[in-house]
Amino acid sequence: MVENTENTENIENIENIEIVEIAKKAKDAFLKTMNLDNESKNLVLDLIAKEIDKKRAEIFLNNEKDLNYAKTLLEEGKINKATYDRLKINDNKINDLIKGLNDLIKIDDPVNKTVWKKELDEDLILTKVTVPIGVIGVIFEARPDCFIQIASLLIKSGNCGILKGGSEANNTNTLFSKIVQDAIIKSNVMPKDAINLVYSRDDIKKMLELDEYISLIIPRGSNNLVKYIKQNTKIPVLGHASGICHIFVDKDTDFDNALKIITDAKTQYPSACNSVETLLIHKDFSYIEQLKQGLKEKNIKIIENPDNFSFEYGDTVLSLKIVDNIDCAIEHINKFGSGHTDSILSKNKENIDKFLNLVDSSCVFANCSTRFSDGFRFGFGAEVGISTNKTHARGPVGLEGLTIYKYKLIGKNNIVDDYAKGIKKFNHRFI
Amino acid sequence: MVENTENTENIENIENIEIVEIAKKAKDAFLKTMNLDNESKNLVLDLIAKEIDKKRAEIFLNNEKDLNYAKTLLEEGKINKATYDRLKINDNKINDLIKGLNDLIKIDDPVNKTVWKKELDEDLILTKVTVPIGVIGVIFEARPDCFIQIASLLIKSGNCGILKGGSEANNTNTLFSKIVQDAIIKSNVMPKDAINLVYSRDDIKKMLELDEYISLIIPRGSNNLVKYIKQNTKIPVLGHASGICHIFVDKDTDFDNALKIITDAKTQYPSACNSVETLLIHKDFSYIEQLKQGLKEKNIKIIENPDNFSFEYGDTVLSLKIVDNIDCAIEHINKFGSGHTDSILSKNKENIDKFLNLVDSSCVFANCSTRFSDGFRFGFGAEVGISTNKTHARGPVGLEGLTIYKYKLIGKNNIVDDYAKGIKKFNHRFI
Repeated sequence: MVENTENTENIENIENIEIVEIAKKAKDAFLKTMNLDNESKNLVLDLIAKEIDKKRAEIFLNNEKDLNYAKTLLEEGKINKATYDRLKINDNKINDLIKGLNDLIKIDDPVNKTVWKKELDEDLILTKVTVPIGVIGVIFEARPDCFIQIASLLIKSGNCGILKGGSEANNTNTLFSKIVQDAIIKSNVMPKDAINLVYSRDDIKKMLELDEYISLIIPRGSNNLVKYIKQNTKIPVLGHASGICHIFVDKDTDFDNALKIITDAKTQYPSACNSVETLLIHKDFSYIEQLKQGLKEKNIKIIENPDNFSFEYGDTVLSLKIVDNIDCAIEHINKFGSGHTDSILSKNKENIDKFLNLVDSSCVFANCSTRFSDGFRFGFGAEVGISTNKTHARGPVGLEGLTIYKYKLIGKNNIVDDYAKGIKKFNHRFI
Repeated sequence: MVENTENTENIENIENIEIVEIAKKAKDAFLKTMNLDNESKNLVLDLIAKEIDKKRAEIFLNNEKDLNYAKTLLEEGKINKATYDRLKINDNKINDLIKGLNDLIKIDDPVNKTVWKKELDEDLILTKVTVPIGVIGVIFEARPDCFIQIASLLIKSGNCGILKGGSEANNTNTLFSKIVQDAIIKSNVMPKDAINLVYSRDDIKKMLELDEYISLIIPRGSNNLVKYIKQNTKIPVLGHASGICHIFVDKDTDFDNALKIITDAKTQYPSACNSVETLLIHKDFSYIEQLKQGLKEKNIKIIENPDNFSFEYGDTVLSLKIVDNIDCAIEHINKFGSGHTDSILSKNKENIDKFLNLVDSSCVFANCSTRFSDGFRFGFGAEVGISTNKTHARGPVGLEGLTIYKYKLIGKNNIVDDYAKGIKKFNHRFI
């Protein structure tokens, strides 16, 4: 449905299909994609890469329409410069997308991998194998290159998807969606309904109700978007609403290293979710004043003891609290943090262990920047998002987070009654 | 809160605490249990086992109160004989509980296991380790031995719990809860708020809203209970609302084996969730009539082409449908099944592979009974429940399903900027 949708006037032939119909078809498509072999999936990815390369001019033309639309929004103060800039697709971004697709082709199939194999009895073999999850709803904001990245991750992992991009990028996303659909059709290996683009905010609302067809929602965007989604669906949501990351400076930390790491964690990309928001300093650290001064010289604004320790600045601003000891630091993090990424700077091995074990966050670091919390830096090849969930997948999520498993049991006419009566006995032996 | 709660008149000193307070304290307790070593956890389990052994007489006395209460319900037709029977605790059940506890003590710690270790750079080491999830709400029905089983699984896995048992078992559950609490206090290794028993239906309702404190809900009970819970919470739910399991009899199946396996899958324990509900037979199977006759002789009632193929009989009744081919069978299962357990009986290797790969269920079997779908039979030692979820844990869930992971990254003052600028390069090498 494209009613009440902004920035769609230039798009021809948007099909006027109810999202429930899209979801039903995607679910049917999943029953075909879930067991696709790696070669077939790579064929689609390769066709997408080639088509993107070929259609650069057309992509730039569509992107231009989005940029024109966004320029008005920028002038009206409805979006900021950063959002406007992220919208732009140039040759470099196209090259990155193509490289990303080719890298993904080289990665082993995340699906159909044997996790383990076990003899329940000599003629009864149980295998735990990875499988894709199902139809995944992904909601992302302005950056249109996201569409290709997400679609390709879903294809590689055998999942199907319903993608909702930011309306500012509608023209670019529509062309990307067409390129993906054309590649799927040309490949002749999977149904064209595997990957779908939807447009309106109303679609998000409806998507969240479709737990019959959609198995997972991945929101990639602002805190408010993620919070709204988490509050309005029964479908499992993979993501993080906020990134309240901490650095704890222990008593015996080098001043130079502390300054270097905190500066990196705060200024390298201040609006990133893995940027540090709160600095906790041990009261007996010898360089408290020098550290504050040093950070100010890096243009970091320090707010000591703010009213709200759970506020994400997304800017070069840091909350500061002096703590009595490491236990107080850990308690503070578990109380005010978002379970994202927290780092201790210390030379004390015992304190490092304590911090890593007792901070209840997805990523717990020692003597390095919180900014390392990222799928690419962790070597996952591609990142679906960062999760602060306590179930399924946690921290930076790669292709593995898009899979689950099934159990295959192959017997020779075995019945439970024989084991219940003691006629037969289980082995339970890994093979 | 114990207002409006049945079968509590014999229980002294039920604390009148709001469930939100219980949940808060349990969350605090979790921050202490999450990193307990195996020895400490085993100490608590051992104390529970010894205390149960010692308090047999007191347990039977409390159980007698429940049985008296339930007898009235039975006479009034409010519960059935099976529920009444399951309520009874005798020496055998106590022995089983003690054996279960001792078996659990022998199992490796599911927590603090290194999943993998990776060098991001030579001085930047990433480790993926298993950790417990948090506070888990478990809602179970009549069988009071469940309390000890669930509490011990939670303790072994470092999680904390809020348990709500069936009101028929309130007296027995209360004593079991006291035994667990006493063991925890005596052990002096974990907070007493780690494991909690709550009583009223109102507590369930409130528990489902406490997503701030509770990370996972596990309902073990009737379809209606599970459906109600899934529909009324944003907390992840691990379980299955129904078990619509299928057996597909392929064209070339031995008559004797088919009869034997279907009989086992339907009659070995008809009310179990892994019992078969629907039989799909290939139209060219040579013994269709003989099979129907054979099953009737086993006192199985066959309903051909019922209006509702998604109905769980929980009795010795089977839906039957003749299908044109294996594709129709797979389509039927993916449409009407509950993603629980489905089995193919066939000598055709290609068809077996097709069935196992294209049926989108947690457990897909070949040439054996659906009744094998069970944590004990799978060799998991203990079973939390069976999940038809598409995320986190699927199929029979053992201790592993009560864990998640965190990432520990230990550096030597590494900053992201060095890698962004190309001064340093990532290794990404498993070690």
